[in-house]
Amino acid sequence: MSKQVLPVLQPDQTCCAPMTREPLGEADAAELARMFKALSDPVRLRLLSLIASYEGGEACVCDLTGPFDVSQPTISHHLKVLREAGLVDSERRGTWVYYWVQPVALNRLSALLQAPVPARVGA
Amino acid sequence: MSKQVLPVLQPDQTCCAPMTREPLGEADAAELARMFKALSDPVRLRLLSLIASYEGGEACVCDLTGPFDVSQPTISHHLKVLREAGLVDSERRGTWVYYWVQPVALNRLSALLQAPVPARVGA
Repeated sequence: MSKQVLPVLQPDQTCCAPMTREPLGEADAAELARMFKALSDPVRLRLLSLIASYEGGEACVCDLTGPFDVSQPTISHHLKVLREAGLVDSERRGTWVYYWVQPVALNRLSALLQAPVPARVGA
Repeated sequence: MSKQVLPVLQPDQTCCAPMTREPLGEADAAELARMFKALSDPVRLRLLSLIASYEGGEACVCDLTGPFDVSQPTISHHLKVLREAGLVDSERRGTWVYYWVQPVALNRLSALLQAPVPARVGA
């Protein structure tokens, strides 16, 4: 068995020119808007960040209900929206489903939003 | 009058730990979700990117209707949503209103979404 070394992608190599560099086309905008829509709910944002910051990079669905004041079916619905937007992926192992973030998708959005900050003197 | 040199903020200095580092609190999530909601419409995303990539960094509202197959009042509504979310700012000069992006706000969202990509060998 040969030793295999995979490159670690840096955020700026993953994809997508910043939207400040050139105007977005219709198809890209439609796809990206769908991903941003998945991020447009406070509970979904907190769920995503909880999964992303979980030790080992993945969280059991059994750990994801406690911190929220909403029902288990509501959490399941939000997780489904995040998964369908390509922001998380999941796998059933025995009784529980485990979730982890899709870093390439997050970095795609991150790169898109990077903006140069102009140095303004005065006003 | 003394010469004034303002620092140029780099994206990673602007604000906010990546959401992969620690779970978002309720207040931050509510505020950020509002900004993502403004990005969740394809026409708004294209408008924002058109403004951001405009020569000189600002665009007259008179240049923002042509590329879209929607009415002027609809464009005005979308621009209002972007402005209220803190993603663009505007100023009237004579007949026209001019728009520019708020780079600090965009970079805040960009930093939030940065995710380390794990080097996975095999599956």
